Amino acid sequence: MAVSNIRYGAGVTKEVGMDLQNMGAKNVCLMTDKNLSQLPPVQTVMDSFVKNSINFKVYDNVRVEPTDRSFMEAIEFARRGAFDAYVAMGGGSTIDTCKAANLYASSPDSDFLDYVNAPIGKGKPVTVPLKPLIAVPTTSGTGSETTGVAIFDYERLKVKTGIASRAIKPTLGLIDPLHTLYMPERVIANSGFDVLCHALESYTALPYHMRSPCPANPISRPAYQGSNPISDIWAVHALRIVAKYLKRAVRNPDDLEARSNMHLASAFAGIGFGNAGVHLCHGMSYPISGLVKTYKAKDYNVDHPLVPHGLSVVLTSPAVFTFTAQMSPEHHLEMAEILGADTRTARIPDAGPVLADTLRKFLFDLDVDDGLAAIGYSKADIPALVKGTLPQERVTKLAPRPQSEEDLSALFEASMKLY
Amino acid sequence: MAVSNIRYGAGVTKEVGMDLQNMGAKNVCLMTDKNLSQLPPVQTVMDSFVKNSINFKVYDNVRVEPTDRSFMEAIEFARRGAFDAYVAMGGGSTIDTCKAANLYASSPDSDFLDYVNAPIGKGKPVTVPLKPLIAVPTTSGTGSETTGVAIFDYERLKVKTGIASRAIKPTLGLIDPLHTLYMPERVIANSGFDVLCHALESYTALPYHMRSPCPANPISRPAYQGSNPISDIWAVHALRIVAKYLKRAVRNPDDLEARSNMHLASAFAGIGFGNAGVHLCHGMSYPISGLVKTYKAKDYNVDHPLVPHGLSVVLTSPAVFTFTAQMSPEHHLEMAEILGADTRTARIPDAGPVLADTLRKFLFDLDVDDGLAAIGYSKADIPALVKGTLPQERVTKLAPRPQSEEDLSALFEASMKLY
Repeated sequence: MAVSNIRYGAGVTKEVGMDLQNMGAKNVCLMTDKNLSQLPPVQTVMDSFVKNSINFKVYDNVRVEPTDRSFMEAIEFARRGAFDAYVAMGGGSTIDTCKAANLYASSPDSDFLDYVNAPIGKGKPVTVPLKPLIAVPTTSGTGSETTGVAIFDYERLKVKTGIASRAIKPTLGLIDPLHTLYMPERVIANSGFDVLCHALESYTALPYHMRSPCPANPISRPAYQGSNPISDIWAVHALRIVAKYLKRAVRNPDDLEARSNMHLASAFAGIGFGNAGVHLCHGMSYPISGLVKTYKAKDYNVDHPLVPHGLSVVLTSPAVFTFTAQMSPEHHLEMAEILGADTRTARIPDAGPVLADTLRKFLFDLDVDDGLAAIGYSKADIPALVKGTLPQERVTKLAPRPQSEEDLSALFEASMKLY
Repeated sequence: MAVSNIRYGAGVTKEVGMDLQNMGAKNVCLMTDKNLSQLPPVQTVMDSFVKNSINFKVYDNVRVEPTDRSFMEAIEFARRGAFDAYVAMGGGSTIDTCKAANLYASSPDSDFLDYVNAPIGKGKPVTVPLKPLIAVPTTSGTGSETTGVAIFDYERLKVKTGIASRAIKPTLGLIDPLHTLYMPERVIANSGFDVLCHALESYTALPYHMRSPCPANPISRPAYQGSNPISDIWAVHALRIVAKYLKRAVRNPDDLEARSNMHLASAFAGIGFGNAGVHLCHGMSYPISGLVKTYKAKDYNVDHPLVPHGLSVVLTSPAVFTFTAQMSPEHHLEMAEILGADTRTARIPDAGPVLADTLRKFLFDLDVDDGLAAIGYSKADIPALVKGTLPQERVTKLAPRPQSEEDLSALFEASMKLY
């Protein structure tokens, strides 16, 4: 279980200037996106900088669902700025972009692919010291403030990949529920689905002692190490909060109690999956997002087609957990029960269908598009979706059940329609 | 929620040499106690040093229930050795001694009282950088491998006090269940009571947002910050493990499943109370241990009278939770239920007595001495016990209910006899 340092409370964002001062920072990079830069949360951060005499520059050109190109642009900004600390304010896209900027600015001789996950990149271990990074999430989904992972679209191959190293984990996450009030309905829903899948996938991931090979030296072990007694606690707890609060948080933008709880759940699930890993929903989501054609998600103010990450993850969940249930049926039934199913009379072989039905009902209640078909995919796209999943072995190999290409095809096909 | 970095698994101790090599350590101090230095776990550590070409010196003069004098001796050893890393193998006494040795060897100009908690010491914040410290617990109680606290008897005043700073938290805790097989019956029982009270006290501690004053600058906030949504998760989970496994772990030294779970519970409760704090059972335990007359605990191989920490903590628990129940009766009932009580028909005003009765039954089943009278105290000692509790305000002020000296007297009196 690796380190995650978070502070929770309404208004903790105001302390960011003091935190930077305590760290001795004198020249800070604030990263955010264009929408958010016009909203009060970013103003709160800048006010705190000014009050604590922190010099700063703003980079607000973060791309929602970033690419290698958008990462490179942020990295250039960071390299030129020679910053001694970073503050990332936004969703996972912003926090991930800032992690990459900090990493490559701290390692000026590196090529971009050096630290990118194999097999797409070289997956080199990070040995350079990074600058402090404070992450202030404004969505309640990625848990990126607690993890050592940065995800992007690699444009040349049209697949998502990422950088995974404990070294890029933020120094501190400020979990301030006041920011959650700025999320439109679909943003809170989709980011909540990310939390849902982080919890479900990390709880059902291959147990840590069954992962192989186990590198002899602890420093070579992957950030995602398989499910374990500590990550299980976070997964179950986050799932309970999702079951209790996600619908309320979506329905009513002013329900601060529900939105605060989802904001915490996002960090909790992040600590869980940041240690245990995720598997098929995430591995399959990367081509679902990367191969997007014309789908434009409601409530996302961007100028390009976009399947939001949380949506791309959740659409395959009924199929995925039907497929994995045989490996740990009790865990699957436990999750169904937490999500509201009556499992008292359920039999072990029914664990997969019971959880899948529970998920379908949950998604239907939350107005989720009816499967991959509803976001523009057809059967003809399945070979490309499978091909885009194959390089995601960093996560797919954490699935409790191994998958052939035929299995992946079947999972995509079963996810074309949900209801 | 502050940082706790732990690794769990049978045999992880063997990796300690590689971890030190990864940290660049060349001259390591291994701290342990005289009993343990003859046992296989210490040999495992030394073998790992040799295999990884780590130079080391052994300090095995740690005192069980350390004093300022025994701390000073370890500090002298550390100062002379100019070590670049520390490994502490043992119970809380050893890990705490090693934290102090690392702190004062890293701060050669400090007087001993500089970092000791006020009002006994000056409670200065730690701003010097410390060396890496790897803690390998061999008892399942203190959770010291996860906390920034080091406790000792201040001989001149005959009270326990300590040093509390996030800076002295171990860099890494290696939670290796194989070491638990060397604990005699009373050691596993008493250390388990420490886990029990860490969970009960941190779950019922004053909520973090009610603690005052709240220092404006985050760096000035105490290590013990009051109960909060994150520490609650650890407390409840640790309590569930205690309820399920402590009796089995005590009865059968070979029950590796039970002892492994208690070893994890110790770390879990440590992460919880290390952030939330403890309160009256711990605050009152310090004079109970410090004023010991002739009591010699079974199964502890020491040459001085000793009330083991876990025993000194648990003896007041029925009285303490009767006293605090009115502040959060639902939490108190929830804990009673986890410990096996049928609370379906319990009324809110009964929360205190229900939990107290549940604790008494639990302690009776585990052969605990019948109250403070059974370990050598009488009514005449109460004023001294109260006087020894008053300086413990770092913890007692975290109790959910304020206490007068009369309240403390009544709590000690009610704890003279349990059954």
